[in-house]
Amino acid sequence: MVLARVVGTVVSSRKEPRIEGIKFLLLEKIDPETLKGKKDYLVAMDSVGAGPGEVVFYVTGSSSRMTTVTEGKPSDATITAIVDNIDLKGKAVYRKEAE
Amino acid sequence: MVLARVVGTVVSSRKEPRIEGIKFLLLEKIDPETLKGKKDYLVAMDSVGAGPGEVVFYVTGSSSRMTTVTEGKPSDATITAIVDNIDLKGKAVYRKEAE
Amino acid sequence: MVLARVVGTVVSSRKEPRIEGIKFLLLEKIDPETLKGKKDYLVAMDSVGAGPGEVVFYVTGSSSRMTTVTEGKPSDATITAIVDNIDLKGKAVYRKEAE
Amino acid sequence: MVLARVVGTVVSSRKEPRIEGIKFLLLEKIDPETLKGKKDYLVAMDSVGAGPGEVVFYVTGSSSRMTTVTEGKPSDATITAIVDNIDLKGKAVYRKEAE
Amino acid sequence: MVLARVVGTVVSSRKEPRIEGIKFLLLEKIDPETLKGKKDYLVAMDSVGAGPGEVVFYVTGSSSRMTTVTEGKPSDATITAIVDNIDLKGKAVYRKEAE
Repeated sequence: MVLARVVGTVVSSRKEPRIEGIKFLLLEKIDPETLKGKKDYLVAMDSVGAGPGEVVFYVTGSSSRMTTVTEGKPSDATITAIVDNIDLKGKAVYRKEAE
Repeated sequence: MVLARVVGTVVSSRKEPRIEGIKFLLLEKIDPETLKGKKDYLVAMDSVGAGPGEVVFYVTGSSSRMTTVTEGKPSDATITAIVDNIDLKGKAVYRKEAE
Repeated sequence: MVLARVVGTVVSSRKEPRIEGIKFLLLEKIDPETLKGKKDYLVAMDSVGAGPGEVVFYVTGSSSRMTTVTEGKPSDATITAIVDNIDLKGKAVYRKEAE
Repeated sequence: MVLARVVGTVVSSRKEPRIEGIKFLLLEKIDPETLKGKKDYLVAMDSVGAGPGEVVFYVTGSSSRMTTVTEGKPSDATITAIVDNIDLKGKAVYRKEAE
Repeated sequence: MVLARVVGTVVSSRKEPRIEGIKFLLLEKIDPETLKGKKDYLVAMDSVGAGPGEVVFYVTGSSSRMTTVTEGKPSDATITAIVDNIDLKGKAVYRKEAE
């Protein structure tokens, strides 16, 4: 799974019928050492109700269809968790409550 | 899913029978901050009737077979949405109607 | 799918039984703007009878098993089309007949 | 499979129900020549009880669901082994007992 | 499939039960133009009995489970052939017998 921040949204009116009603979030991958964005973006489906600015991790590949929201849908990236804490090499690099 | 622009077409007369009658579009990945092309190209199948110049997103992997057009076909990249709006860090970076 | 040129062959006498009798082609990915090779090589199975020097596209992942030749075989890259024409941003960048 | 070191943990209270109770480890990919971290991080599930500082390898893609712990769960990276020894070009580059 | 050289081994005593008894080889990807290693390493399962120094190709993704040795096992990279000959742009760049 990959750490990222929710940085935007993507809206489409003409799309594959199976993804009607799905919300598409724009994610920016982050470096866990600094929590800074890596200027590397992707569009993800969301199984957990993530909001703007939140740190999440998403799953790729066939596993991105294995959530309540994305079952049977053509996804290759789905947010499966909103992150509360990241600890790296003994340091608390991220606390959601402290943001 | 990945943001890209439709920049061309690829035509083949000798191909795997299962992909006969499929249209192949040439996509260039775009940077959502600037909407500029990244000189990174791929060939995609299309489930939504995308046209030249349009901003789309496509899905990769086994999910690229999970659309009405590509079911049972050997695709690893299928366009599943024509993009209307992209919002990034509070800014409206793309509006289809304004192009 | 990815654009590439057939640049060679790979021969093996000791291999997994399921791939006996399969021909392995060496491909070099190409840049569609210039049609030049990118020095990025891979080994692919071939479902269409591609020959040396030809421009093709290949499919990756589980879809590379979904051709007449590769069904049930451990492939992660299979040529599914010999390319006749590539049009990019309004220009005819490749015509097979003109090579 | 990919060599990495366990360098931290990721905690989430709001997540896809299917991954409740799973522990998420933060991994840093390592270079087997030097055993140094490559500043390339990912979040993995763990099927073997790996602890902080340990060298492991993890599996990606659909195979990351094929362990006792991750069966049916949306994972794209699962630790499947704690590494004892690495030998590279005739040299013992890593011995767990010597750390 | 990807060309690589067998450059070492990885040993683990604590691992997912489904991979007990499997041998893990350390591979270095090679450039077919020069046959030199690219300092890009991975751990692979082996379906063909490859030995140290041999040039092989391996398969990735779900296809890496489609060999006699790896059926049902969590692999994402399995050697499926020991390479005898590589011809590139009309030149014999590798002959196993000549090594």
